[in-house]
Formats: sequence, C-alpha cells, structure tokens
Amino acid sequence: MDLTSIQDPSFLKRLSVTELESLGSDIRRFLIEKLAVTGGHLAPNLGVVELTLALHRVFDSPKDQLVWDVGHQAYVHKILTGRTDQFDTLRQYNGLCGFPKRCESEHDVWETGHSSTSLSAAMGIAIANELKGRANDRAIAIIGDGALTGGMALEALNHIGAEKQNVIVILNDNEMSIAPNVGAMHNMLGRIRASRKLKHAREEMESIIKHIPLVGNSLERSGERVKDLLKSALIPGTFFEELGFTYFGPTDGHDLKDLLETLEYAKKIDGPVLVHVITKKGKGYRPAELDGIGTWHGLGPYKIESGEVIKGKPKGPSYSKVVAETITKVAESDERVTLITPAMSVGSKLDCFTKKFPERMFDVGIAEQHAVTLAGGQATQGLKPVVSIYSTFFQRAYDQLVHDICRQNLNVVFTIDRSGLVGADGETHQGVFDIAFMRHVPNIRILMAKDEEELQRLVYSALRYDGGPIAIRFPRGEGIGVPMSDTLQEISLDDWEVEAEGTDVAILTFGPQVQDALEVRSLLEGTLSVRVINCRTIKPLDEAMLASLYAEGIPLVTLEEAALAGGFGSSVLEHANEAGTFPRIQRLGIPDRYIEHGGVNQLLEEIGLRPTQMAESIERFLMETNRQNV
Amino acid sequence: MDLTSIQDPSFLKRLSVTELESLGSDIRRFLIEKLAVTGGHLAPNLGVVELTLALHRVFDSPKDQLVWDVGHQAYVHKILTGRTDQFDTLRQYNGLCGFPKRCESEHDVWETGHSSTSLSAAMGIAIANELKGRANDRAIAIIGDGALTGGMALEALNHIGAEKQNVIVILNDNEMSIAPNVGAMHNMLGRIRASRKLKHAREEMESIIKHIPLVGNSLERSGERVKDLLKSALIPGTFFEELGFTYFGPTDGHDLKDLLETLEYAKKIDGPVLVHVITKKGKGYRPAELDGIGTWHGLGPYKIESGEVIKGKPKGPSYSKVVAETITKVAESDERVTLITPAMSVGSKLDCFTKKFPERMFDVGIAEQHAVTLAGGQATQGLKPVVSIYSTFFQRAYDQLVHDICRQNLNVVFTIDRSGLVGADGETHQGVFDIAFMRHVPNIRILMAKDEEELQRLVYSALRYDGGPIAIRFPRGEGIGVPMSDTLQEISLDDWEVEAEGTDVAILTFGPQVQDALEVRSLLEGTLSVRVINCRTIKPLDEAMLASLYAEGIPLVTLEEAALAGGFGSSVLEHANEAGTFPRIQRLGIPDRYIEHGGVNQLLEEIGLRPTQMAESIERFLMETNRQNV
Repeated sequence: MDLTSIQDPSFLKRLSVTELESLGSDIRRFLIEKLAVTGGHLAPNLGVVELTLALHRVFDSPKDQLVWDVGHQAYVHKILTGRTDQFDTLRQYNGLCGFPKRCESEHDVWETGHSSTSLSAAMGIAIANELKGRANDRAIAIIGDGALTGGMALEALNHIGAEKQNVIVILNDNEMSIAPNVGAMHNMLGRIRASRKLKHAREEMESIIKHIPLVGNSLERSGERVKDLLKSALIPGTFFEELGFTYFGPTDGHDLKDLLETLEYAKKIDGPVLVHVITKKGKGYRPAELDGIGTWHGLGPYKIESGEVIKGKPKGPSYSKVVAETITKVAESDERVTLITPAMSVGSKLDCFTKKFPERMFDVGIAEQHAVTLAGGQATQGLKPVVSIYSTFFQRAYDQLVHDICRQNLNVVFTIDRSGLVGADGETHQGVFDIAFMRHVPNIRILMAKDEEELQRLVYSALRYDGGPIAIRFPRGEGIGVPMSDTLQEISLDDWEVEAEGTDVAILTFGPQVQDALEVRSLLEGTLSVRVINCRTIKPLDEAMLASLYAEGIPLVTLEEAALAGGFGSSVLEHANEAGTFPRIQRLGIPDRYIEHGGVNQLLEEIGLRPTQMAESIERFLMETNRQNV
Repeated sequence: MDLTSIQDPSFLKRLSVTELESLGSDIRRFLIEKLAVTGGHLAPNLGVVELTLALHRVFDSPKDQLVWDVGHQAYVHKILTGRTDQFDTLRQYNGLCGFPKRCESEHDVWETGHSSTSLSAAMGIAIANELKGRANDRAIAIIGDGALTGGMALEALNHIGAEKQNVIVILNDNEMSIAPNVGAMHNMLGRIRASRKLKHAREEMESIIKHIPLVGNSLERSGERVKDLLKSALIPGTFFEELGFTYFGPTDGHDLKDLLETLEYAKKIDGPVLVHVITKKGKGYRPAELDGIGTWHGLGPYKIESGEVIKGKPKGPSYSKVVAETITKVAESDERVTLITPAMSVGSKLDCFTKKFPERMFDVGIAEQHAVTLAGGQATQGLKPVVSIYSTFFQRAYDQLVHDICRQNLNVVFTIDRSGLVGADGETHQGVFDIAFMRHVPNIRILMAKDEEELQRLVYSALRYDGGPIAIRFPRGEGIGVPMSDTLQEISLDDWEVEAEGTDVAILTFGPQVQDALEVRSLLEGTLSVRVINCRTIKPLDEAMLASLYAEGIPLVTLEEAALAGGFGSSVLEHANEAGTFPRIQRLGIPDRYIEHGGVNQLLEEIGLRPTQMAESIERFLMETNRQNV
C-alpha cells in the first residue's frame, strides 16, 4: 500500500492478518530503500516490523501509551503514525528525528536516545493514568534484552513488579543490542528460548502436579506451596514471575497471528505483565540478518544489492581505532592493562584488544555504572584498567566517577569516545557536557589531543601515569591524516604548547578545534596576528603558561566544542580571577541549550563556531574591548 | 575479653563457637556503650556482629578481601582489625571514619558511603586476583537487601553471574535499609524466608524427582532438563540460581554454628556464590530491635537504659520537615502533586505526606535513577511530581536529570536535602557538587532559601510553576527560628534581594550563608560597609541586579558552601565576562578536594569559611585590589 497515505494507526484494526503481513513487507521494502540513501538504524527497525504492527493493532495509541526504549527502533511506529513522507530528511538538520520526539506526534509520548529509561517512564505514565481515573489505559514499554540489563531498568522492574499498575513490558529479545548481548540474564533468556521445545513435556508435567498430594504424606502439609513452586519451574519466565510479573512467551515476533493473540491476552491482565517476544534483528534483509557483530545496528548509506556500506575515503584512521590499537600495544608489555566496555566494543572498535587479550577484556553490557566501579575494584589491586565509554553514556556513571574512582584517587583511565558534537544522533547523544561534569571533580586529569598522533601519545602516557584517574576525550570520526609514529612516545600530561605564534590575540583550545583555530588564524592573516595554543591538558590548567599570558597582556579566546557553562573557558576565568588579573577573555563554545540533530558543520554554523564565523567574532571582540580600553 | 588488645583477626581461628559467642556479646556491649556517647550507625552494626565474626574466622583478610556495601556496618570489622581504641573519636574531626577507609587499615580494601557499589568492586578485585594468579583468594561483598536493588548492584549481579570468578556475595537480609525495604525483590526474599519450613517437604520431593523418568513416556526426551527445573523450584533462591549463582541459605545470621558451616561450604565452591543470611537490625539492644522505621539506623547520642535519644533544643523546625509539610499542604488543594523518594522517607521526614496521601507517595527503594525518570513519566501526563533526594545521592541520577527531565523540559521539582557540608558522614556524603553538576544542564532552575520561611515559600512557588524543572536545595539540620507564616505565600523565582545595605563590598550568597554574610557584615562594621544580597535563584542569575552592580562598580564577593569549580561564583564570572565587564570578584567556597568528616564548623574553619575568617579575607581582598587599582 501507499505508506504516505497513512495518517494514524487506526486503520490497522480493519486489516486481516494477511493484509497486515503484506503491509509489513511494504514497510520493510520502504525502510531498506530509504535508509540505503539516508543511513540510520536499519536492523533494529527491520526486527520490529510485525511487533509494531501488532502493538498498534491491539492497543489504541495515544490513549494507550507506547514507550520505546532507546528509541532508534521507532521508525515503523513513525510510519504508522503519519510521518512516512519525512523519511527523506531522517536524522538530518531540521529533519525527522531518529528517535521519538514529542513535538513530532502525539503518539510519541516519551523521548529517548539513551537506553533503559522506558520502564521508569511507563510506570510514571501508568501511575498518572491511575490517579486520573484512566487505569484501563495501558502504558507499554518496548525494551530490548540488552537495555533490560541497564541498572535503571532493573530498578524499575523491582518497583513495577511490586505494584498493581497496568504496565506492559514488551521484552524484544533479539540477543543483540548495539553489540552481541552478554551477562547472566542473557544466558537465562537463552535457556527460556531453548525451553520452547519442552511444551509437550510441560503439559504432561502439569497433569502430574495435579496428583502430587497423593504421592507423599509429608507433602500434604505444604502441598499447595510445593505445587506452586513446581509449576513456576515448568513455566519459562520464573525469573519475571518471581519479580511479580505475569509472564507471556516466548512468542515468535515475526508471526503476526501469534503476536496478536498474545498481546490480546496481555491486554486483559491487570497489573504488571511481561511479554517475551523473540525477534531477529535485520529480519528480511539478508546482509543485516547475517550480521553477527552489530555493523547493521546503525550505519550510513549502503548499496542495497550487495549490502556494501558506502564510505568516503577517510583522511586518517578513526580516533576510536587509534585509541584501541594504542591500548592493545601497551597491553603487550604491560600485564596490568585491562579494558572494560559497557557494550561499546563495536562502536569504539575494540576488537583488536579482544582478539589479543580476551582474558583482560570485559564487555559488561549496557551497564555504565558497573563498568566504572568494576575498574575501580581492579585498580585497588594494582591493575591498570581502561574504561572505554561514550561521552554521553558516561553521564550514567557520574556518581561512580565522583564517589568510587576520584575520591579514592584510583589509577583508572577513561577513554571518552564521541566527545563533542556527534551530528545525526542529535541532542541525546551530543558529547558536550563531560568537561562540565568532570571538571569540578577532585583528582581527575582531563586531556584531549589535537590529532591522531597526539592521541596515541596521550593514551600511551596516561597508561604509564600512576598519579590517579585520567580522562582522555576524543571526537567521533576520523583523524586529520598526520603521519603516525610506529613506536609509542611519551608526551607531557601537564604542559600546553604554542601551536602557532601570534601577537594580537591567543586562542586557547584543544582537540580538533586546534585545526579550526589554525584556520581562523589563516583567515585573519594580514588583519590580526593570531597565536594558537594547544591546551591538551584541560584539567589541570597549565598555570605557568597562563601566568605568562597574563603578564603579556594578550587578549585570550577560549574555544571548546562543549558546554560553556562550567566548561574550559570558565576554568580559565576562575584561574584569572584567583590570580587577581583581568585579562580580556572571549569564550566560544556551546550555549546553554540542547543541540538537535544535523550535520556537525550545520550545527556548528547554527551556534557560530565555524572558522569564518569565529574569525569575525574574534575581530569584533577585539574591536569592542579595544574601544573600552581606550 | 579486652577488645583493645585485638591487633588483627587471626586470633579468631583459635576460638570455639562458645568463645566466639561470648566475644560477640562483648562487642555488642562495647558498641551500645560507645555509640551512646558518640552517636553513629548502631542498628546496622548490632545486626552483623556474628556475621562479621564468622567472616573473619572463615576467611583470611586481607588475603581474602572483604568489601562492605555502604560501609556503615563495618564497626565490628574495625574492632576485629585493631581499631577499638579509636572509637571515642568515631565520626569526629580527624577521628575514626564511620566508613571503611583504606588509610586506616590494610583490611579496608574498598571505601564507600553510597550504597550498591560492593558487587562491582568485589568483581573487579576477583578479576585482579585471577589475573595475578591468586584465583583461590575470595573477594567477598557484604550487601544488604536494600542496597541490592540499587541499579548498579543489579548490573553487577548480571555480570558476576555469567562469569567464573570467585566472588562471594553475602546477602545481609534484614528487611530494612535506611528505611523499611520495598519492591519485588523484597517480596521475593520474604517468600524465601517463609519457605524455610518447607525443608522436609523438599527432601521428600527430591527422592520423587529421582524417579520421574519412570512416570511419563514423553518426558524421557527432556527428562534431565525437567529434573533441573523441578529441582531449582524446590530450592529457595531460584532467582539467584537463574542469574548464575550457587545459592546457600537462608541462614540464621545470629547462629554462629550455622554461619560458620555455611561460609565454609561457600568457600569451597568455585565461581559466584550467594549466601543469604537473615539478620535482625539492632540485635541485642531492645530499643533498636523494636524500631520499625529506621530511627536507630544512624543517630546521635542516646540514653542506654531508656533508649531515649539525646537532642539539643533546636532553634527552628528541621528544613526537611518544612519541605515535607509544605508539599503536603499544597497537595491538599492540588491533586497533581505526587512525592517520590529513593528510600529517604525517614531522613527527609516525609511521613506527613505518606499518611495523608498514600496513593500519591512512591518510595521506590534505593533506586535514584528510577526515582527521577519515574517522575519524568508522571510529568508527561500533567502530574506535578516532587523528587525528594539527598544532594549526594542525586549524583546517581545525573544522566536522568540531563537526558530525561531537563531535555524534555518536564515539570519536576527536586527537593535536594543535605545540600552543603553534612559533617559526620564525611566525604562520601558532603552535598557540595550539586550546583556544579546541575548548573550547566539546560532548562533547570536552581534555588536555595535563606531560612525556613523562605524555604516554605520557594517550595510553594515551585509547585505552582509550570515552566520546567526546578531544584530546591536545602541544608541538613534545623532552621534559624524565624516566624513561619500559616498561609503559603508566593515568592519570586527570578529576583535576588538586598538583605542588608552597604557600599564598600557586596556579598552575593544564598541559603544559610546569608546568615554568615550578615555576621561578616557585623564583624566589619565600622571598618567596611558590607552589602548582603540574597541570591536565592542560583540559576538563572538575576541579570538586572548584576548589571546594576557592575554599573555601580562595587567589589563583589560570592560565597557558597559548594565546590568553587564550576559553581555559583564561577557563573557570576561567566556572566561578567559575557557582559564585557571586569568587576573585582572574590569567590569563597569549597576548594578542589574532598572534605572529610568532622563537625561542620570545624570543616568550615579548615577551609576558611567561618565568618571571622571570611571577614579577614574580604578585608585582605579589598586592600589588595585597591592597591592594584591605584
């Protein structure tokens, strides 16, 4: 059918199972074709085509509220709620968001991006439904088996299971999140999947249970309880039943008849329900189905026929890869080095380490808090753990950083991937708060490299440093193509460096912005003489260099692709204030609001951080302050 | 025996069970007597006397590593590791820490204060043991049933259960944490406790299971699996077995013979083990045993005979109580108001709300992340949730604040208890980072009141405000005794207020520091004319007031009982910088390090924030900057 004709999901009620199946095929074809051009989260959405159809058929959105965990699997939902014609702009500047967005549709009741929030949100919604006399409405959380092991989802399970609100948890069990899933719950779900063949045995068992009180005398006293126990063992999902949920499943998530039947049952139950649905990520598109490691989870444009991912020629190696390879090299000679990741082994390209040192590699699943404190435990025993984590997900482990790592001044290295703007993933994923949330934490050292060679040196030097915790930020994407030295070399973890001389103004910056600053310098050549300083140690500041800058009286510009409030520029202000000096300082960075999705350069343009814009604003700043000084 | 003669726990190996029991009585008597004078965490420690004796008898600390969750139950451990003579200084300035402290003893391998970190730490330690060829050493986490439902502990269970490392989890099940425990896991543990009487039935059942293949034909195919299932159902702790743990228990935590036997078994098992121990908080001291709500969890001095808590006469009502009562009053006329707490109903005195509006009160247990996002879910449906949370524990929900609440600009009110220095609980509990970790988050409004009447007004006004999230900080302890109005009155959430006029310098501050500033003003009277400004809106700043201060050219002093880095003073610097002005600013606050335990005034003295010290430093500041200006 013509998917653009869909206004809202109510038409689904009139379709037969066969018609729904056919609609599912249309949606699959649409997604495979559109995403080949725009890129996006293909595999998660192909996996939930039937599930989304069934949910919108059985429930009445938005009266019943669908809460998508993580939210990158809401494309089918977006199609069924009237947004098909916007898919050309998916994840682009001012275009359709890659996640649920309340301003886009009344059917998007909860916004996400980070994992494991859906159960808490759905419980909050269910409580509101009850207090408002709408207890019959269902709050439905759709959560993957990977996201379910995030701590806050488990906290929510513990709460929901003890209460009476009508929360339906759809466990979308595809054995993969952003990488293959791990952990004890994953193993348990595997046993449940395997137990499906026990169905017949189970029926027979149940008839035996009925006769148990006849078997043994002493059993009669507590017969009922024993029966309960026996019964629960024969039902897959004991684990969830123990937590207070009525468990349905496992259900084949690609069998619409089965799904509709199960969901209709679930809808009739009062109190917390968990529906265990088995789906296949990438279902219906062979290259994605065959993917065992998560390549097709989210990606750029690709060739439909071959499944070949279309990539421009990178200028340099990816920053993630440089970090992973450096850690691997150091680990060859330093047995203390271990690597911990909360499910980001694919995104941060950690396989080189995993292959070489499987016994020192710990993928703990989506569990940032545990990842950080696990590193702390290792560090107390003299190991040298590296926690590889995305900037935005590191937010989940702020307390562990403050309370466990920095307070005990432990030798843990954090390699913080996707620091700065990330682009298409948008406001939930921009890595722009980490300086502000780390800078005030005592004992931590925060670093960022101007290029891939410096990054290699910083990682190497951080691993040789035993003075406490170190965070090394690095951006998404590729390096700038500088030559890389084969042997690892140390670099100061204290000093800033003058990158280019100049006498009229000094730009203090770090990371990829050093290049931008050099471009600003070129743009202003002839007008102004711009000094560029590489402040690779963001905390602590290079106090000697700052003192000499104050003494010189040169105006300063701080530049960071990070929140201005409480950021690097702010720390320079604090330092100048403590030194009792009043240098002219212009702070460039990200204003006090969330930055939506779009190309990174478009976003930088929006906030005035493109080199041409910065050149202009620096000129303006100097003119204005010169006037004042006259 | 003379407890001060204990050097280390090795002597325990030579004691008989009877001798151990007698030692236990001595320790109990010692704790009851000592804590009657110093105060401290009495009930948790009385509950683990036998457990601690048994652990130190069966295991070899520090070769085997004991990791105490939260850590306030480590007093018995401190006695057994040679620190008896320091108990007179417990929780006092430069005295014995109320939590494990690595600098105090080699037997303290992990420092805590916040809950639920022990499993991650123990797993990290076990991994280190294995990599260092010491796999036979046991890493032992002792965790309460309340702490076990914290998200990071559940993340850790999920990891540990899937691996082979020798981690022993001692589940100290006393049905209470800091308040009575809640949630589905709590219910499940209750069922296990109840199932102890099933022991005989269980034995009989096991003999039946042996004969099952003879019963039904179709069972033979999958007979083994069915037997496994049946067996697990008959064993309490299926839940933990499902998660990959070998489960022992439930064991009577006050029966030394039973405990020793169980722990000896547990020691012999390879891989993850969970020992379920039932203890009674406050065991052996009647007033504490009879406590049903958590009064005896941690407290000040008390009279041993009567169990009466000794309290000075407070000047005003406690800030917690003012907040709770105001929320309750507002909830009478506003049905949208709900209250959420992560297990802090006792500490934050929320019972007045609970009694009146049980259906709108949600104690989610130790689960800060869930608490915050649960509020978010409620807010999307037009409710007006209040999250009552301690400043230090709010650190656990930083990402939920950034990603769920502020990004969606939801109407959630955070009432942040114990903001500022807390004193005896020390560095893990000081509420000094919340301004720095909230200030850079877009959309949030941060407030603090100068006294209990203003606090009442702020809470009332915040609950009437529908413009997004609001955080109201308030300190530990009691108000200053100002008259409280019976009717709730609104107050501006934007404007600062001149508290006292002055012309030489203006102190910008908020909260109880307004009083301190007034004292500074008195101290300097005759020398300097000090203006005191109540900056009750910490974010956003009162820009109009600041502009007029800049225009006036008066020197500014910012004062906050919070981290200076990225704090309130820093935000004033940022504002002045953006305004292109160079006012003289002195920032007073907490330096970039952790502040240990002690009396609040002693701690303030240490960092130079007592009024006399501040008066001197302001004089010095003005003299120095006057010199510069000449």
